[in-house]
Amino acid sequence: MKGTVLYGPGDVRFEERPEPKIIKPTDAIVRISVTCVCGSDLWPYRGANPITQPTPMGHEYCGIVEEVGSAVKAVRPGQFVIGSFATSDNTCPHCQYGYQSSCEHREWISTAQAPRLRVPLADGTLVATPEVPSDELLPSLLALSDVMGTGWFAADAANVKPGGTVVVVGDGAVGLLGVLSARQMGAGRIIAMSRHESRQKLAREFGATDIVAERGDEAAARIKDLTKGIGADSVLECVGTPESMMQAISSTRPGGHIGYVGVPHGVELNGEKLFYTHVHLHGGPAPVRRFLPGLIDLVWKGKINPGKVFDLTLPLDKVAEGYRAMDERRAIKALLRP
Amino acid sequence: MKGTVLYGPGDVRFEERPEPKIIKPTDAIVRISVTCVCGSDLWPYRGANPITQPTPMGHEYCGIVEEVGSAVKAVRPGQFVIGSFATSDNTCPHCQYGYQSSCEHREWISTAQAPRLRVPLADGTLVATPEVPSDELLPSLLALSDVMGTGWFAADAANVKPGGTVVVVGDGAVGLLGVLSARQMGAGRIIAMSRHESRQKLAREFGATDIVAERGDEAAARIKDLTKGIGADSVLECVGTPESMMQAISSTRPGGHIGYVGVPHGVELNGEKLFYTHVHLHGGPAPVRRFLPGLIDLVWKGKINPGKVFDLTLPLDKVAEGYRAMDERRAIKALLRP
Repeated sequence: MKGTVLYGPGDVRFEERPEPKIIKPTDAIVRISVTCVCGSDLWPYRGANPITQPTPMGHEYCGIVEEVGSAVKAVRPGQFVIGSFATSDNTCPHCQYGYQSSCEHREWISTAQAPRLRVPLADGTLVATPEVPSDELLPSLLALSDVMGTGWFAADAANVKPGGTVVVVGDGAVGLLGVLSARQMGAGRIIAMSRHESRQKLAREFGATDIVAERGDEAAARIKDLTKGIGADSVLECVGTPESMMQAISSTRPGGHIGYVGVPHGVELNGEKLFYTHVHLHGGPAPVRRFLPGLIDLVWKGKINPGKVFDLTLPLDKVAEGYRAMDERRAIKALLRP
Repeated sequence: MKGTVLYGPGDVRFEERPEPKIIKPTDAIVRISVTCVCGSDLWPYRGANPITQPTPMGHEYCGIVEEVGSAVKAVRPGQFVIGSFATSDNTCPHCQYGYQSSCEHREWISTAQAPRLRVPLADGTLVATPEVPSDELLPSLLALSDVMGTGWFAADAANVKPGGTVVVVGDGAVGLLGVLSARQMGAGRIIAMSRHESRQKLAREFGATDIVAERGDEAAARIKDLTKGIGADSVLECVGTPESMMQAISSTRPGGHIGYVGVPHGVELNGEKLFYTHVHLHGGPAPVRRFLPGLIDLVWKGKINPGKVFDLTLPLDKVAEGYRAMDERRAIKALLRP
């Protein structure tokens, strides 16, 4: 089969790769229905993470189980399944505590921009939908594999409560789905930070009540103004740069909560400064598995439509164009069809 | 009157100071019954914070109200009161949110190692006891002004729950009272990190179930071992050095909580490393005012005796010896009687 491989900054190739096979009795092989390019894929694509060797890409997936190892009990061939980018046994103490993305046996999925995928720890990683879904549900179900689960975790980690005031830093797919998540959790006011018209529009559609297009000190002043000088109860940091983290901290009220899910790049937090802000800080790789059953239910019942973040659809062999379009911010998120 | 002034590292003087007077109608003048030296006073005493001019010292106090400004309603002359090191109006949005130490009108108390003290925002800062207490209650009531309130906040910020596993980093007065607080909150297991016999003894008396005397990697291994390889649910960071913060982070389970109350000195947190630990981080100057009524009640009913951290009592004019004894770790905490 062919799959996606990153050779260096800007150099994405779709080339011959070994067929995935069952290696351990806990594995499953999934035929991928749809996959996509993640905002975090852009870090190595842009050279922010060094590429020392040709690196297979992709960690968002959903599709039909083709084959399972002898120890797999929870899913069976023919079922439609969604899994997280982090595998989990879902039984270890960290999983039981709700942090499946810190599972003692975690592996990172990294070859999903391909037609077929080996998923380790299938029983604890994959969740089956009630039936094989119609084509129109595929984008929203795919979103649950990472971006929607990550946006949800950002809102959960930021302690979004009914009636609360929320700021979302970052207008990528995760930030936009953070807006949707905050809305679902009953936030009273949702301030989305975005300077791109199409993203502002989607943010409003997802539930944003206010848009702040400013950056830096001006943005901080605008948010102070919008929150009567208090700051927000909950702030979702969905970028991962020093600037976005500072923006998040300066937007949060004393005692307020920051949920940070943008993989930090170059972020250094001064302990003394953080101390006097009185913020709560929580984040990390989203424990998507914790949220999957509930989110599948919301999508299945038509209550949320996170698939709207996909504004570009390409055949899988045009994956390089998906990276380019996202890198140049021509697309929010590129869906790929094998 | 005479009061305490720090002139430079190791140079504490008890010298003539202006009598405090009502300046604003919201002020009160308190005749101090007992005051003390704080662990945080040792930072400038040791030269970790630069002293650019002679600096009055002291922020822990309780005593009898002597005089109040015309706007003060909640306390009156003759009452015995305790206040926080941070003044608060107790009505602004930050106060109402429980973060009185980030009050919009906050001032830092800084002249309390003296016989008399001006307390701004008296109505929102001071809490009166049911009656004037007996002498034997004074140490425990004084402790509420900072160390006990701060230890309590550390446990609260670390989300200590009944049955939970707690690690306390730091065996100063705050750390020891963090142990006491965790015990009060029903923690199942409390691991105190201490290598000093007298402090280990007090930690056990306050409720520690285990003592770890190791430091660094050895300590991390011991704690992993004591927690079946999982890490603690709640970790109280009561020191403020890079080493103690790293110790706290490495002791916490994924999804666990760190309450940090040691004023950070030289602590820099790498965003990416923090991200993958999955910890919750919360701390800052303790909002002691939030806890004062409940803690006064516990002391008044004899349910807690935080005053045990005072293992040295001196007349106020011997304050310099109090600093020396704490600096040399001959004393946990020095109580001063005017």
